[in-house]
Amino acid sequence: MLRVGIYGATGYVGYELFKLLSDHAETEVAFATSRRSVGALLSDLYPCPYDQPLVAPEDAALEGVDVAFMCLPHGESMGTVAAARTAGVRAIDLSADFRLHDVAVYEQWYKVGHVAPGLLDEAVYGLVEVYREQVAAADLVASPGCYPTGVLLALYPLVRGGHLASGRVIVDAKSGASGAGRKLSQGSLFCEVNEDFRAYSVGRLHRHLPEMEQELAGWGRDDVRVTFSPHLVPANRGILSTIYVTLEAGWSVGRLVEAYGEAYAGEPFVHVLPEGKLASLAYVVNTNRCAISFVEVGEGDFIIVAAIDNLLKGAAGQALQSMNLMFGLDETMGLPG
Amino acid sequence: MLRVGIYGATGYVGYELFKLLSDHAETEVAFATSRRSVGALLSDLYPCPYDQPLVAPEDAALEGVDVAFMCLPHGESMGTVAAARTAGVRAIDLSADFRLHDVAVYEQWYKVGHVAPGLLDEAVYGLVEVYREQVAAADLVASPGCYPTGVLLALYPLVRGGHLASGRVIVDAKSGASGAGRKLSQGSLFCEVNEDFRAYSVGRLHRHLPEMEQELAGWGRDDVRVTFSPHLVPANRGILSTIYVTLEAGWSVGRLVEAYGEAYAGEPFVHVLPEGKLASLAYVVNTNRCAISFVEVGEGDFIIVAAIDNLLKGAAGQALQSMNLMFGLDETMGLPG
Amino acid sequence: MLRVGIYGATGYVGYELFKLLSDHAETEVAFATSRRSVGALLSDLYPCPYDQPLVAPEDAALEGVDVAFMCLPHGESMGTVAAARTAGVRAIDLSADFRLHDVAVYEQWYKVGHVAPGLLDEAVYGLVEVYREQVAAADLVASPGCYPTGVLLALYPLVRGGHLASGRVIVDAKSGASGAGRKLSQGSLFCEVNEDFRAYSVGRLHRHLPEMEQELAGWGRDDVRVTFSPHLVPANRGILSTIYVTLEAGWSVGRLVEAYGEAYAGEPFVHVLPEGKLASLAYVVNTNRCAISFVEVGEGDFIIVAAIDNLLKGAAGQALQSMNLMFGLDETMGLPG
Amino acid sequence: MLRVGIYGATGYVGYELFKLLSDHAETEVAFATSRRSVGALLSDLYPCPYDQPLVAPEDAALEGVDVAFMCLPHGESMGTVAAARTAGVRAIDLSADFRLHDVAVYEQWYKVGHVAPGLLDEAVYGLVEVYREQVAAADLVASPGCYPTGVLLALYPLVRGGHLASGRVIVDAKSGASGAGRKLSQGSLFCEVNEDFRAYSVGRLHRHLPEMEQELAGWGRDDVRVTFSPHLVPANRGILSTIYVTLEAGWSVGRLVEAYGEAYAGEPFVHVLPEGKLASLAYVVNTNRCAISFVEVGEGDFIIVAAIDNLLKGAAGQALQSMNLMFGLDETMGLPG
Repeated sequence: MLRVGIYGATGYVGYELFKLLSDHAETEVAFATSRRSVGALLSDLYPCPYDQPLVAPEDAALEGVDVAFMCLPHGESMGTVAAARTAGVRAIDLSADFRLHDVAVYEQWYKVGHVAPGLLDEAVYGLVEVYREQVAAADLVASPGCYPTGVLLALYPLVRGGHLASGRVIVDAKSGASGAGRKLSQGSLFCEVNEDFRAYSVGRLHRHLPEMEQELAGWGRDDVRVTFSPHLVPANRGILSTIYVTLEAGWSVGRLVEAYGEAYAGEPFVHVLPEGKLASLAYVVNTNRCAISFVEVGEGDFIIVAAIDNLLKGAAGQALQSMNLMFGLDETMGLPG
Repeated sequence: MLRVGIYGATGYVGYELFKLLSDHAETEVAFATSRRSVGALLSDLYPCPYDQPLVAPEDAALEGVDVAFMCLPHGESMGTVAAARTAGVRAIDLSADFRLHDVAVYEQWYKVGHVAPGLLDEAVYGLVEVYREQVAAADLVASPGCYPTGVLLALYPLVRGGHLASGRVIVDAKSGASGAGRKLSQGSLFCEVNEDFRAYSVGRLHRHLPEMEQELAGWGRDDVRVTFSPHLVPANRGILSTIYVTLEAGWSVGRLVEAYGEAYAGEPFVHVLPEGKLASLAYVVNTNRCAISFVEVGEGDFIIVAAIDNLLKGAAGQALQSMNLMFGLDETMGLPG
Repeated sequence: MLRVGIYGATGYVGYELFKLLSDHAETEVAFATSRRSVGALLSDLYPCPYDQPLVAPEDAALEGVDVAFMCLPHGESMGTVAAARTAGVRAIDLSADFRLHDVAVYEQWYKVGHVAPGLLDEAVYGLVEVYREQVAAADLVASPGCYPTGVLLALYPLVRGGHLASGRVIVDAKSGASGAGRKLSQGSLFCEVNEDFRAYSVGRLHRHLPEMEQELAGWGRDDVRVTFSPHLVPANRGILSTIYVTLEAGWSVGRLVEAYGEAYAGEPFVHVLPEGKLASLAYVVNTNRCAISFVEVGEGDFIIVAAIDNLLKGAAGQALQSMNLMFGLDETMGLPG
Repeated sequence: MLRVGIYGATGYVGYELFKLLSDHAETEVAFATSRRSVGALLSDLYPCPYDQPLVAPEDAALEGVDVAFMCLPHGESMGTVAAARTAGVRAIDLSADFRLHDVAVYEQWYKVGHVAPGLLDEAVYGLVEVYREQVAAADLVASPGCYPTGVLLALYPLVRGGHLASGRVIVDAKSGASGAGRKLSQGSLFCEVNEDFRAYSVGRLHRHLPEMEQELAGWGRDDVRVTFSPHLVPANRGILSTIYVTLEAGWSVGRLVEAYGEAYAGEPFVHVLPEGKLASLAYVVNTNRCAISFVEVGEGDFIIVAAIDNLLKGAAGQALQSMNLMFGLDETMGLPG
């Protein structure tokens, strides 16, 4: 049994991860931390039967722990990661703190100084389908952001193959409300989200932009400029991204389905849908799946529709997928779908 | 044109009232107050085009104001009401501060000392269908709570007529999420309400209980003991109350429909549904209606299903109905439905 | 009082229109038709107090009727319109049957032969903000489709002014579920829409495409090719369109706000939002508003976010706005917002 | 590996069961039937990756099948059950056809003649927590209805112990929309359920009533008369039952928690909540749990609040729990929560 620690177990991602780890056949939870609810049980904070006591992060004992997950806000996570690594504990960070290789880019977008820049080199971007071998060997995984996960999986075969005819990529993304986390905010109240649908951080504003563009550049397209329009869906979970691209001559939906099928052959969680079907939240919610589908518009223009569950494939599920790999377990163990 | 003031215009009730008064043919808003958003516009706080500036309550000028509405938390409202009355301004209080005639009962349930007990005598309980003449003449109206409004209208003809065979009344009530107001609370977050359904303050705990029992006693049944079970519906608006009563011999649904039809003859907002139809939120939401319907269970047991929109008939709409009466306007003016 | 007839009063649009006309100060409903519910009352079909009897369309008496509204499926509407015009009754058609000037385009997209092509010339496209004078004088108004209404209002000032630098326009649109109408379909069941979010008829498939492109061409841009991606939002009402355009040099959000403000000066229902605010469903739902907002992406790329209520500004509300104009009434009469 | 057949795999319950069986470590699906979608794949009917072909029920090969599940409408199920039993296949029937021991009661409530009354004696009512040994040995299990499951588990310890002081039991129940199944019905459309909340089949009308009263009588209280008020919650899944009972003297919430804790000691899926906590849909949805909680009203009156997921513990999950028992597997295998 692996002994795992969870920093930040009371947010939506941390709670989702706790449930996955509780049901996982090869893990036991060594500790679960909370800053504001020290001494409470998880069952005091969520309607659930998990009587897991919550400890302060500074009281979490790292001895004997095989891996620690950080489900903490950016800025707060990096110090915790550094401490875990110093203690020799492998770390899977679900915050943004180790996703961007360039510390200057990080500090510009996140408006905070990085306290552990020395660890950036060892951090592996945990997009398993792209970096499987590196993840398996990693001591520190920077688990991807929710939006980038679906968008990058949807673009990877095209970008790696050099098939984008234009660097203009539009991502019109729609996320369920859990993406905003459990923090108190008027915009997250039921009556403000329900029966509404709204855009936010549209254009070149959202912090997941540099993360997407870093990866696209790494795959050979440093000229890609993503226009990113996140929207808030009145639903709990899931992200649907409608992605507008222009391809070089000769592509069709059929050829895309074939090429993606090959690129993702054997991938347990990537579902390339046949021509005529479109990815939807219902296809992926409560699973670790990423569904990808295609529509041809004409004159080289295509639409890629991709969907994930933001709390699973976009966060806790993907992080657990990394853990499975890091410890030589079946990659799908404990993951729905 | 009546000049009206709104204390507490930024909560769900205050905002609803502002919209009603903005569209009302005979009113103009003299001021709208906010404690936390002084200097902001209403359009900064809600997605709407109302560029109404928000002033601090102490800066609200009462001179020339015909009537002031208090959409304030209990405890905070009574001082504001007292100040308005001192300034000779008629007041319609949507808080609980003047609903209970007995100051001791108020202080016991609301855990706060009453600062204006001398005004309790002049306060008229604003259940217009029962107290129309008193409301019309009132200088101070205590507008009923959202739950009591529907429940009391559903019970009034039976209680006044002395037809309850038992003092045991069970009210299983279900309210949309706006009933909790716009204050920040984890339990009001979208992801906590959506896809959930839960009970709260069940039994003899909810503050609307003494208000219901006061009125029932006033109508001749001081032996009635209400079992009250509020629930939270994943919807924005509306209250449906399923009420279990035992009647004296001889009643049927047909006779109930007839008796209620007579009791509420001419009432513009009370809809007594024919046998076979049940009240629902859809019947009343976005209107000032109260819908009442009946089911016979057998052996004298009956179920009354009643519905209102908690923000309209249960709050802002009913308060405006009182205002119309107080100033000799058509009672339905500016009220949907 | 105008005497108005409603053909097809039992769908979502017809019912919405019935409610507007019932509350309108200058109209009385002469008849409301239904094909499947002849003899029933509207209150049998919706939770509402409207005991309006429903008559078969062939039994609807056109004598003495000032105007008839057709809330019928395309294909079914045109014969009814023709009959009304023959009887000398002015008609406002909410179907697609008279929106496309070119009968061949109509027949290609709607797969049905047109039975009244001779009326196409007299039909005025009822986008009031663009064709106000023609609407006022019209005997036959073809009320615009829900998607085109918001999209066209969002593009009109730019297209008329010749400011699009490229004919490539992407419309990523999101509609509430009432857009699919009240017909029985598995995809419209609560459990299929709730907690899902999905795209449909994406690319160049949706029947509202030729309608949009016809108008854009009429305003001087016959080269514009709209990529149109409708999505289904788990909410009852509203359409939010996120529109991607490339403008000639020199534009900024500030200049757009100014130009649109001028273009729509005096328009009672078009709300051009200030820089920094984004249109949302909450801004428009249950009103006849169209809200328009802008974001700059860089390098000439802009995003226009526009919102309407699909049942009001996108259907019944807009049709009533036309009626008000046609009969010399205040254009806003009976219209919320 | 057990070979299992599913009759009626395309409704909500059948699909839920298919997913459970697909993920179950000890089962393989031998066939899945559909009457209307013969030849289609399950992935054609639901957004999912399950390319399970659907066969006509008469083409389903029972040879070599260990157990067949019937997720069919009442009336249609009994013939299929009879055929399976004739073929020597054990059967778990999720319809109502074998739940009522008295064929006359069945025929009165379900308005259909029973075609296999001879099997009623061998049918075991599949409420595992009460009839575990009988279920384990059964060849035919009549899996309980969704409403009765939660209500009966909530009442069992009190009724078996003889603690009800009165035969008057009120069950105010609230169900998510999946309870109505996937059949096309106007009342199940998204726009009719969303933002509404309504009662239906209130009083003594719902077909789950005789099922509840049969069991209560079997446990010693044939005088209990249930008043049953089902309501429709705008949510996909879950049933919350608020149950009003009067107990003999001496009970308190603490004593109830203790007594239920003993009665359900060792039960993997029954969660008796501590005093002060209330069962909610969020506690049970997507799990096989039944949560039970208590509130004291005074004078012997108590409220029991119980919750289940109607598709899992109320249908497919409970049926699988029976299967696990019948074949000597761990009772919790393949069941979430």
